[in-house]
Amino acid sequence: MTAYDDQNIFAKILRGEIPSFKVYEDDETLCFMDIMPRTDGHCLVIPKTPCRNILDATPAQLAACMATVSKVANAVKKAFDADGITLQQFSETAGGQEVFHLHFHVHPRHEGVQMRPPGQQGDMDAIKGHAERIAAALD
Amino acid sequence: MTAYDDQNIFAKILRGEIPSFKVYEDDETLCFMDIMPRTDGHCLVIPKTPCRNILDATPAQLAACMATVSKVANAVKKAFDADGITLQQFSETAGGQEVFHLHFHVHPRHEGVQMRPPGQQGDMDAIKGHAERIAAALD
Repeated sequence: MTAYDDQNIFAKILRGEIPSFKVYEDDETLCFMDIMPRTDGHCLVIPKTPCRNILDATPAQLAACMATVSKVANAVKKAFDADGITLQQFSETAGGQEVFHLHFHVHPRHEGVQMRPPGQQGDMDAIKGHAERIAAALD
Repeated sequence: MTAYDDQNIFAKILRGEIPSFKVYEDDETLCFMDIMPRTDGHCLVIPKTPCRNILDATPAQLAACMATVSKVANAVKKAFDADGITLQQFSETAGGQEVFHLHFHVHPRHEGVQMRPPGQQGDMDAIKGHAERIAAALD
């Protein structure tokens, strides 16, 4: 498996070298908005320590991420009055991965509404507002 | 949120009331094959304790599931000589959930190969063979 590359954009976000719309943070994980959102409220949960994807993640990294995913999923559902949640995690290019730092996609879902196609840049003001809405809905 | 219903098919699999193609089992989790596989090797990881989905899962249930997901993902990759892994978890009908016991979908992925559409019954002999292949590839 390819080694972890600390020049990936999530590593840069973790180091504060590039900005992000932060939703939640604790000692082990960070949640911030996807700027190519496939749903309104689409956010990402990552570990703060280096890890490429599910294939090299430690049980501790996964446990920490999932505790945050669960917390954020409930907040996203409340913030967007969603009917459900879709969680995705992609490992390696063939699996759908584009940034090679482990991340979980959290999507609020509404009955009958499809996700948008991937790769479309979102509106930055709207995304900032969504981050604030989710953060306000966290317990 | 709707209460857990212990008549769901995964609860019946856990109680041994209906059969499954088992891949892996430990004290807290079970991994078995999806019989409507969207990829060859498509398997499911569930906690042994009651839980509807990500919205009511405890950190301990999630940690246990993800430790197994990680183990199984590596085995699936090896067994199918896959290029990557796609992990999905659906919560509530709007999120894509059909069986209301928390489960994670693990898919081996190959470059350029799409997942099959959902809802297609697989060939039972082939699925049995896939379960054996993944089990043999577990460390």
